[in-house]
Amino acid sequence: MALRAGDHSQVAMNGLKEKVLTLDTMNPCVRKVEYAVRGPIVLRALELEQELRQGVKKPFTEVIRANIGDAQAMGQKPITFLRQVLALCVHPDLLNSPDFPEDAKRRAERILQACGGHSLGAYSISSGIQLIREDVARYIERRDGGIPADPNNIYLSTGASDAIVTVLKLLVAGEGRTRTGVLIPIPQYPLYSAALAELNAVQVDYYLDEERAWALDVAELRRALAQARDHCCPRALCVINPGNPTGQVQARECIEAVIRFAFEERLFLMADEVYQDNVYAEGSQFHSFKKVLTEMGPPYAAQQELASFHSVSKGYMGECGFRGGYVEVVNMDPAVQSQMQKLMSVRLCPPVPGQLLLDVVVSPPAPSEPSFAQFQAERQAVLAELAAKAKLTEQVFNEAPGIRCNPVQGAMYSFPRVQLPPRAVQRAQELGLAPDMFFCLRLLEETGICVVPGSGFGQKEGTYHFRMTILPPLEKLRPLLEKLSQFHAKFTREYS
Amino acid sequence: MALRAGDHSQVAMNGLKEKVLTLDTMNPCVRKVEYAVRGPIVLRALELEQELRQGVKKPFTEVIRANIGDAQAMGQKPITFLRQVLALCVHPDLLNSPDFPEDAKRRAERILQACGGHSLGAYSISSGIQLIREDVARYIERRDGGIPADPNNIYLSTGASDAIVTVLKLLVAGEGRTRTGVLIPIPQYPLYSAALAELNAVQVDYYLDEERAWALDVAELRRALAQARDHCCPRALCVINPGNPTGQVQARECIEAVIRFAFEERLFLMADEVYQDNVYAEGSQFHSFKKVLTEMGPPYAAQQELASFHSVSKGYMGECGFRGGYVEVVNMDPAVQSQMQKLMSVRLCPPVPGQLLLDVVVSPPAPSEPSFAQFQAERQAVLAELAAKAKLTEQVFNEAPGIRCNPVQGAMYSFPRVQLPPRAVQRAQELGLAPDMFFCLRLLEETGICVVPGSGFGQKEGTYHFRMTILPPLEKLRPLLEKLSQFHAKFTREYS
Repeated sequence: MALRAGDHSQVAMNGLKEKVLTLDTMNPCVRKVEYAVRGPIVLRALELEQELRQGVKKPFTEVIRANIGDAQAMGQKPITFLRQVLALCVHPDLLNSPDFPEDAKRRAERILQACGGHSLGAYSISSGIQLIREDVARYIERRDGGIPADPNNIYLSTGASDAIVTVLKLLVAGEGRTRTGVLIPIPQYPLYSAALAELNAVQVDYYLDEERAWALDVAELRRALAQARDHCCPRALCVINPGNPTGQVQARECIEAVIRFAFEERLFLMADEVYQDNVYAEGSQFHSFKKVLTEMGPPYAAQQELASFHSVSKGYMGECGFRGGYVEVVNMDPAVQSQMQKLMSVRLCPPVPGQLLLDVVVSPPAPSEPSFAQFQAERQAVLAELAAKAKLTEQVFNEAPGIRCNPVQGAMYSFPRVQLPPRAVQRAQELGLAPDMFFCLRLLEETGICVVPGSGFGQKEGTYHFRMTILPPLEKLRPLLEKLSQFHAKFTREYS
Repeated sequence: MALRAGDHSQVAMNGLKEKVLTLDTMNPCVRKVEYAVRGPIVLRALELEQELRQGVKKPFTEVIRANIGDAQAMGQKPITFLRQVLALCVHPDLLNSPDFPEDAKRRAERILQACGGHSLGAYSISSGIQLIREDVARYIERRDGGIPADPNNIYLSTGASDAIVTVLKLLVAGEGRTRTGVLIPIPQYPLYSAALAELNAVQVDYYLDEERAWALDVAELRRALAQARDHCCPRALCVINPGNPTGQVQARECIEAVIRFAFEERLFLMADEVYQDNVYAEGSQFHSFKKVLTEMGPPYAAQQELASFHSVSKGYMGECGFRGGYVEVVNMDPAVQSQMQKLMSVRLCPPVPGQLLLDVVVSPPAPSEPSFAQFQAERQAVLAELAAKAKLTEQVFNEAPGIRCNPVQGAMYSFPRVQLPPRAVQRAQELGLAPDMFFCLRLLEETGICVVPGSGFGQKEGTYHFRMTILPPLEKLRPLLEKLSQFHAKFTREYS
């Protein structure tokens, strides 16, 4: 006998009261949240791993988690210098050990001096350790060819995700037709759709152009904005560059056009630049929104509001588990900035070990320091291998009939388009699944390869994709790509 | 010339467009958020520290931050074994070092085995490393005298704050008179009021009884609930035990009465138990809500919904900077639990170093292990000193005329009541300040002692308090308490 939700006095005949918190009574915005990168396909991958451990026979011997940009889980080694500095800070007795280089020790001492009680175990101030904010500012200035950065506009965070959600929170307001709308790219990284659903803001989709290597087209922004103004109040524009999941690296002219558009249309700009160190393609180069905006001069330089996000989880270091990141705000209303600072203070502080790793990332060993050579060699090795894997991925996929993959210019993912036969689409619909979810689930069951269906990122109606990281080790990646291509061929035959 | 908010085309005469994001256009719920523990008084303390560094003359030589429960910032040393295990995991080359005990190495190897790519740098699954969830479950079972705990009901978090906000998020729903109300104690830890303001839920105050050492009285719960039902839909009851800021440790009968009340009135229970290791007073003992609820048998044991929170930031370890914690849910609707898991997955994972510290805290060295003796000695030393400081605080304050302090039975704070002369109250009102904020600001300016006014935690109308941690080192604490008492006497004379 089902109980009606919200009936406080009703008791079932078995003496059980209905739960207070049920699907019917819980936060409806949370129910709407979706997050494909860790969705049902990943839960199934976890089960399969457990079955393998229990000795259940499968057509594969291991699950390959190509669903998430988690470099170290795929075998990438941590950068030695980062971990040396961190170990010294965690356990300062090691400062007396002869096994650590002098520059690592100096850095550890400098950071500990800046910590409460000279310990990583103390809270930092909520915006992050001041010394590290200053180091981040100097990093941004170097990156942007000398354009000044103010440490007081930099806020350290628990990974970039935390900072992105914080800025979105500030922007959300209104009801009905005045509700805040936020323009996000399609395909997008699903943190955006998830956060907007949770915050009850309106997601406004603009489509990237797959035919032009996922380029951002201002005419499409204009279309999306005009349509959105009929039913909400668009107030922010999110850009992911280099692109996740698309791998696209934006040209400088494109960024200029986006900034002009945002300025004219009065949109707060959010630039997700966590892959700024991950640019592989010849002719591609990372241009920060901050730099372009500043170089465009008035009125943009002094007026266009911008938040730019970075992280220690990606780049060459891939230290995802430490949850370090930052946001730099540009031209933000000082009163709003105080409000943001207040909001951050409620969560006390970002994890201090992540702050510390960020510090080393933004101030790596100098050429004169003993650790310079090894640091550079490790960094280059990771980036060179990622570049080779980006190239290989594009190449192998494009040799497969029915798969088409844009160049992976940057970031850590390919987002190939797959043709799915109409009978497969029909079968998926019968099962209540998105067709590419059906494809990815079958792929997982038969090959152990875990990738995320394009429907989790958004795609043009009637097109199908998946996102696959380029992170598996090079020696595993080629067989993996071939296995995936072969599975697609077999799947196509099966449903033709 | 002021611009109207929301006017998209208006440009001021100086050519400047109004900002997109202003106090007028931003999220109104964020504007309502207050968080006294890091509020204006702490910002002023930061400024004073900077002035001292710059050589500005002050009537004191250092700022004492007694505003926040940050043990290591106050000079408490980290527990050696925790940091050894963490250093080994951060930099596994150390596994070959003779300077680390064997049990620390075994533990580090065990945890690394459970990490993606055997590295702290990989994401964990969103609910936390499974091995650690299992260790937490065993800890809870030992704590609760053998009552079973299911690892699948345990979710690791970014400090306890993160988990508390997540559970509150699930509970928020409705509009107008159906809007979710949450009962919180007054005085409270201001995370609750801040999170409820941000989530646009209704804060329902129930007052703790200062005359009975801040005891929780069910009759007062009943009053608060009845009144709240006129204007919102109360759906959850938060309890902080041991109490922050009150230092009260709840008696078992009180907890039973609260559980019966929550069950009868259909309230989801949230038990903030982060100070469970911090119980000092003779005759006081920590009873977990989970244990009491289970031992009460039917119908409570199988039906009353509960979430219990814990943290690595408090206890004897005080590892605030690592942001480790967990929530255990009891009798939660499985469908809601899936929704919670999904929500957590959007933020990817709690910081892995904090997860690791939590693991060591819940499974400390066994008597047979080489690190046992040192670990126990360090732990006992911290707890014994805290107990002495709790006693001393109560004693010195109660010797001062016009200050009355309940026993600090547990947690890390005293919350003494101070008499403020009517002329001081009047002067504060002229300045637009809460009277106890005025008192605390003057205290800070004249003595360098930073404490938080009671108005930031809530208090009965017309009463004034402040929260002061008991964390300064014992040799500093007595002079500090005396200085504070003397300042109060002087302040009273000045305004009499």
